[in-house]
Amino acid sequence: MTTRLDDTHDPALMSWVETANDPATDFPIQNLPIGMFRRTGSHEAFRPGVAIGDQIVDLSAARQAGALPADVASALNACEPGQLNAFMAQGRAVRVALRRALSQGLKRGSAQQALLSSCLVPQAQAEYALPCRIDGYTDFYTGIHHATAVGKLFRPDNPLLPNYKWVPIGYHGRTSSIAVSGQAFRRPLGQLKPPTADTPVLGPSKRLDYELELGVFVGAGNALGEPIAIEQAEDHAFGLVLLNDWSARDVQAWEYQPLGPFLAKNFATTISPWIVTMEALEPFRSAWTRAEGDPQPLPYLDSAETRERGAIDITLEVWLQTPKMRENGQEPQRLMQSNYRDAYWTVGQMIAHHSINGCNLQSGDLLGSGTQSGPADDQGGSLLELTCGGSKPVRLVNGETRTFLEDGDTVVLRARCERPGFRSIGFSDCLGTVLPAPEAPRR
Amino acid sequence: MTTRLDDTHDPALMSWVETANDPATDFPIQNLPIGMFRRTGSHEAFRPGVAIGDQIVDLSAARQAGALPADVASALNACEPGQLNAFMAQGRAVRVALRRALSQGLKRGSAQQALLSSCLVPQAQAEYALPCRIDGYTDFYTGIHHATAVGKLFRPDNPLLPNYKWVPIGYHGRTSSIAVSGQAFRRPLGQLKPPTADTPVLGPSKRLDYELELGVFVGAGNALGEPIAIEQAEDHAFGLVLLNDWSARDVQAWEYQPLGPFLAKNFATTISPWIVTMEALEPFRSAWTRAEGDPQPLPYLDSAETRERGAIDITLEVWLQTPKMRENGQEPQRLMQSNYRDAYWTVGQMIAHHSINGCNLQSGDLLGSGTQSGPADDQGGSLLELTCGGSKPVRLVNGETRTFLEDGDTVVLRARCERPGFRSIGFSDCLGTVLPAPEAPRR
Repeated sequence: MTTRLDDTHDPALMSWVETANDPATDFPIQNLPIGMFRRTGSHEAFRPGVAIGDQIVDLSAARQAGALPADVASALNACEPGQLNAFMAQGRAVRVALRRALSQGLKRGSAQQALLSSCLVPQAQAEYALPCRIDGYTDFYTGIHHATAVGKLFRPDNPLLPNYKWVPIGYHGRTSSIAVSGQAFRRPLGQLKPPTADTPVLGPSKRLDYELELGVFVGAGNALGEPIAIEQAEDHAFGLVLLNDWSARDVQAWEYQPLGPFLAKNFATTISPWIVTMEALEPFRSAWTRAEGDPQPLPYLDSAETRERGAIDITLEVWLQTPKMRENGQEPQRLMQSNYRDAYWTVGQMIAHHSINGCNLQSGDLLGSGTQSGPADDQGGSLLELTCGGSKPVRLVNGETRTFLEDGDTVVLRARCERPGFRSIGFSDCLGTVLPAPEAPRR
Repeated sequence: MTTRLDDTHDPALMSWVETANDPATDFPIQNLPIGMFRRTGSHEAFRPGVAIGDQIVDLSAARQAGALPADVASALNACEPGQLNAFMAQGRAVRVALRRALSQGLKRGSAQQALLSSCLVPQAQAEYALPCRIDGYTDFYTGIHHATAVGKLFRPDNPLLPNYKWVPIGYHGRTSSIAVSGQAFRRPLGQLKPPTADTPVLGPSKRLDYELELGVFVGAGNALGEPIAIEQAEDHAFGLVLLNDWSARDVQAWEYQPLGPFLAKNFATTISPWIVTMEALEPFRSAWTRAEGDPQPLPYLDSAETRERGAIDITLEVWLQTPKMRENGQEPQRLMQSNYRDAYWTVGQMIAHHSINGCNLQSGDLLGSGTQSGPADDQGGSLLELTCGGSKPVRLVNGETRTFLEDGDTVVLRARCERPGFRSIGFSDCLGTVLPAPEAPRR
């Protein structure tokens, strides 16, 4: 099995940033995810940082202090303010160089401790922005349990379409309404036509939902007309974030044929602030297989590496906090848990498929994984699934119920990688809150 | 009827750029479309220009020469190099100010003739770029004759879906593969599964097609969560271009359910270089009506102005030049003609609908109209329609036939507005050429 494990993954590695050694932290020295931050409430420019324990290494400060290798400093220097795209475009080598440099500099006993100490900003004092300019956002549909469950609701006679097991189904989403964790958005207005009604009416969505997804940021792109071979596909992936693909189910049901979801999805999409790099995920790779009886992928989607290590073991969770919970000081409640290793198509397959027709991917493009539901009924990655299409309300611990989201509800996505013999890493929360709908536009 | 006609539309107005007075020109002084150009083969920066006759007014030169009003100069000055977005964001007022200033400066007898003469570049010496950064591209489906004809082929039992007459159907497209007229692109590879085959294979699309559309560039945007009222919707439109939504029909048929077109469309999209402003289109507005028996639009899509002047009378044409025609020195052959006034939904309705859920439009966003086919069989805006799904080849004047596009074929879209009592204006050609497919990626 091809492995890219190195010293930076050593589970014995400890940091002089002591909070990074807490077993519960998302950000041990083995993770080192990249984001875009500034001090909360300041008018500082957003700048790239790397999370370590409860701190952030300010990469602009580290660059100025001479604490980064020349190629990393040069790639960061090429970035436009607040946009990591130029760094992402450099591909794997420079990303690995940053990881090695910070691993060395942040480990216990490092000669760089004094230098890097002066570049730390506490996460408690930080706010985040999108890590890069997102020129393209494509949402895939790689969760077969989700596709089957939702297919049953939209097309009872035909839940999983014949193309599903051959084509990594995807569609283009809207980039302008993507925001970082903490996004609060108004419940969307839209055309609603219950099956029993003759004509649609305009109103606030009554079936507002979340979707539990991962997002893949593209690193190096490809030229128009030049497909990316499956063997090289993962080299074009920069890293992963959590992604909440908020969905208005009533709008979706009425609008989606024949050209797919549009206003049902494009009002808001939330991602977690830290990009967990492909290198950090290295210890959690596993074999990717096809269930017996399922077709093998076409050659342009198949490779030895895909089969040996195409899957990634990431535990995914959805948590909900209602306004009543918040008022009563109650923490969010977990609604479900699933795992990304159940995805039907891999990160590499998404990239190879997206570019097979010559479509040019660009650094900073975001690829959604589609909703990651597990095989069991209680593993639905959306309320649509957990409530069987809104027919069986979810009962919450405080006695409340939910069929779909209500105003003031906060949804938190969480993800963590654990494997015996390796240090666990996390993604940090991806959090979003529903605000009341606006008035319909005046006439 | 609300009218915004003014002195700049006076059909008697003549220019000291004598080629602008040729009745056949696309660019009389009543048009004044905006584009992004440089001298062909130079390493000059692309800069904004306005077409007049066979010349271009270099707006950067005109600004430096002091020939533009202060607000226009300031808006142009705010633009990033090669990107009109900051100018477009200023909305209608600054666009009108530019139009008035150039109309005054370019008319016969203008005191600015000497000054502006020095700012002219011949179109014969120019090459073009996209006029702005296109952050979002949404393709609508407003051609009801196209939707019906294509619906018959994809869903014989159910050609026009129940939502069509209520919802301005649209979906998100890919921005990275949009290019300006002259684009040559490789025939896409994709999964092909003829209805008779059990499994798909990877191969070059055998059913490559064009689609005749108009594209609407968004001027001023809206904030996330703030729908645009139908009464204000057209104020957010900057102007129109021709748009060729190249489509691989075999890929589309296999991939498009349930999430819509993806690789069938995102390999290339071509637009004409000059944006014809909403002001230039003013004389060609007409009443917009619903056919008897069709539902009236919901209130958020309805307004007095929509009904009085929602339609735009633009004659649209598709021309084809095969490699053999080119070798023999034959001009392209016209394949069809239709008119944009037949669109089922207006420009304002597209904008009001797109934002009703709070989705934020951004300056420079591009909205495709969908294929504009006419009501007659010979008015199909794609080969799919003209050949009845590939079953009846089109016979060309030189004895060749086409069911779908072959390598080397050049497709030219053309558009022109004519109305008695007004000066005719044109859009200039939107031209694209099919190159052979690449090899499948090596394994």
